[in-house]
Amino acid sequence: MSLVIRVGPARAEWWREHLQGLLPELECRLWDDPGDPDEVRQAVVWKPPVGGLKRFANLEVIVSIGAGIDHVLADTELPRHVPIIRTTGADLSRRMREYVCLHVLRLHRRLPEIEAAQVRREWLPLVNPPACERRVGVMGLGNLGADCARALAAIGFDTAGWSRSRKDIEGVATFAGDSELDAFLERTEILVCLLPLTPATAGILDRSLFARLPEGACIINAARGEHLVDDDLLEALAGGHIRAATLDVFHTEPLPGDHPFWDHPDILVTPHVASLIDPVTGGKAIAENLRRFMNGEHVPDMVDLTKGY
Amino acid sequence: MSLVIRVGPARAEWWREHLQGLLPELECRLWDDPGDPDEVRQAVVWKPPVGGLKRFANLEVIVSIGAGIDHVLADTELPRHVPIIRTTGADLSRRMREYVCLHVLRLHRRLPEIEAAQVRREWLPLVNPPACERRVGVMGLGNLGADCARALAAIGFDTAGWSRSRKDIEGVATFAGDSELDAFLERTEILVCLLPLTPATAGILDRSLFARLPEGACIINAARGEHLVDDDLLEALAGGHIRAATLDVFHTEPLPGDHPFWDHPDILVTPHVASLIDPVTGGKAIAENLRRFMNGEHVPDMVDLTKGY
Repeated sequence: MSLVIRVGPARAEWWREHLQGLLPELECRLWDDPGDPDEVRQAVVWKPPVGGLKRFANLEVIVSIGAGIDHVLADTELPRHVPIIRTTGADLSRRMREYVCLHVLRLHRRLPEIEAAQVRREWLPLVNPPACERRVGVMGLGNLGADCARALAAIGFDTAGWSRSRKDIEGVATFAGDSELDAFLERTEILVCLLPLTPATAGILDRSLFARLPEGACIINAARGEHLVDDDLLEALAGGHIRAATLDVFHTEPLPGDHPFWDHPDILVTPHVASLIDPVTGGKAIAENLRRFMNGEHVPDMVDLTKGY
Repeated sequence: MSLVIRVGPARAEWWREHLQGLLPELECRLWDDPGDPDEVRQAVVWKPPVGGLKRFANLEVIVSIGAGIDHVLADTELPRHVPIIRTTGADLSRRMREYVCLHVLRLHRRLPEIEAAQVRREWLPLVNPPACERRVGVMGLGNLGADCARALAAIGFDTAGWSRSRKDIEGVATFAGDSELDAFLERTEILVCLLPLTPATAGILDRSLFARLPEGACIINAARGEHLVDDDLLEALAGGHIRAATLDVFHTEPLPGDHPFWDHPDILVTPHVASLIDPVTGGKAIAENLRRFMNGEHVPDMVDLTKGY
């Protein structure tokens, strides 16, 4: 019985060693050196190449190194009968909470304008409303989104959340489904996208959505690049209806050097660092999920493929 | 009976109108147009000029438009028998909480390096420890400091606080007095100064303090410019022992155009915007304190002049 690991080359061996230490009963091997493919029962993957997983005829479970599984479902030859486990864990949501709080506060307090004034040696004492008068909205209320919404409310923001099915989060006004999307957008001055990527959410951050936000709204996308229609954002920024955007994810990563986002004065590009799973803390969560799965116990991170996330 | 108001000219009339509306039983007048000085019983002030308050022979109370009273005590001819009330209120601590969380997160996540990389169109995926492994320390645990320490702990930082007398704050390791200052500094990677300005704290952020912080520590000063020895900070940044500083307050404000802080690559200058008291919410807190004082009730914001803050 062996487990294969597929991550970027820079960290592959780091991951292999950690998982091997945590799961001594399995033989942990790298993707490009899997040994006998029929022996492979578990695959722990980030962005597996198309057709890669079907090589393992006896595969019992796929683990996504990430809260999203879109990068796995992107394999058009994926063996669809194999269950998929996502990776969540406290570390992932803690890091996302930091990123979202930082960037909501940065836009709320208009830090880019103060920094630009410093370059001109200009003392520019902007007066902002307090957080309790700033309406922030989180799209997507899974583990990460719910945690971020709670943290924003704790800082003092007037916080709302929107999700497909209704969620109940203390201190957060929640909206659900298509019928309540307009009401959610109308009240949202700073929008944070933490949606799962599914056919229903791809391209959701588009011209039509931007138009339903109030004048001067800001966008933060820490979910997937495919949620955003790049040209629609550039158009909304040019027209001034959207004031600024903070983007951590892109259609192509790393963001190509000639992409107009790089030198746009109202776009902050961060290099997919909002949250990440490292072998130390992420490895623990993955090993625990795999052990539960192998013992036939309930795995809370098991993906419901009927929902697609 | 009249009340005089002394604030910057741009907001004086805004303040006068608000306080008049809240305190209809008093005649609210501007500092430069006080009417009969013997009629003045209350003075509501920000940075009163030397000798200004002694003009009012029957003054019963001074209100500082601020949590600190150093700007009042700076009047060398201050009538020392007149009690002083500070202004705190939820709005002041809410805004300070926003500022402190924003700037601690910005330094923790090394945002300045990511922004510099964007200018070079460089994808620079820095990996930071999660907040729970980042040791933040707040100096000064009054209303503002205690609230900030709680908020930092809620985001997930390993948070400590230091104050003159011991405080007990859930989720925050507290240190007290000179004897515990070294232990506090040794463990503090990001230091936030929210101390009151007194003879004992003036110049506390100096070469000797910086040397006791760990290599690569960062400084945030949102208290008073006089807490910081400017040249010592420049020296510590040049030597690399201090990684970066975020400064909201300065010896002279606005910061003079030729000051070296303006174009220092590792100093962020913000124009005394961390927190502010506006006539709408601050006026309410001031009117309530004055009404309690006039009714002979306990005023929690009354200054203890034996402590000097």
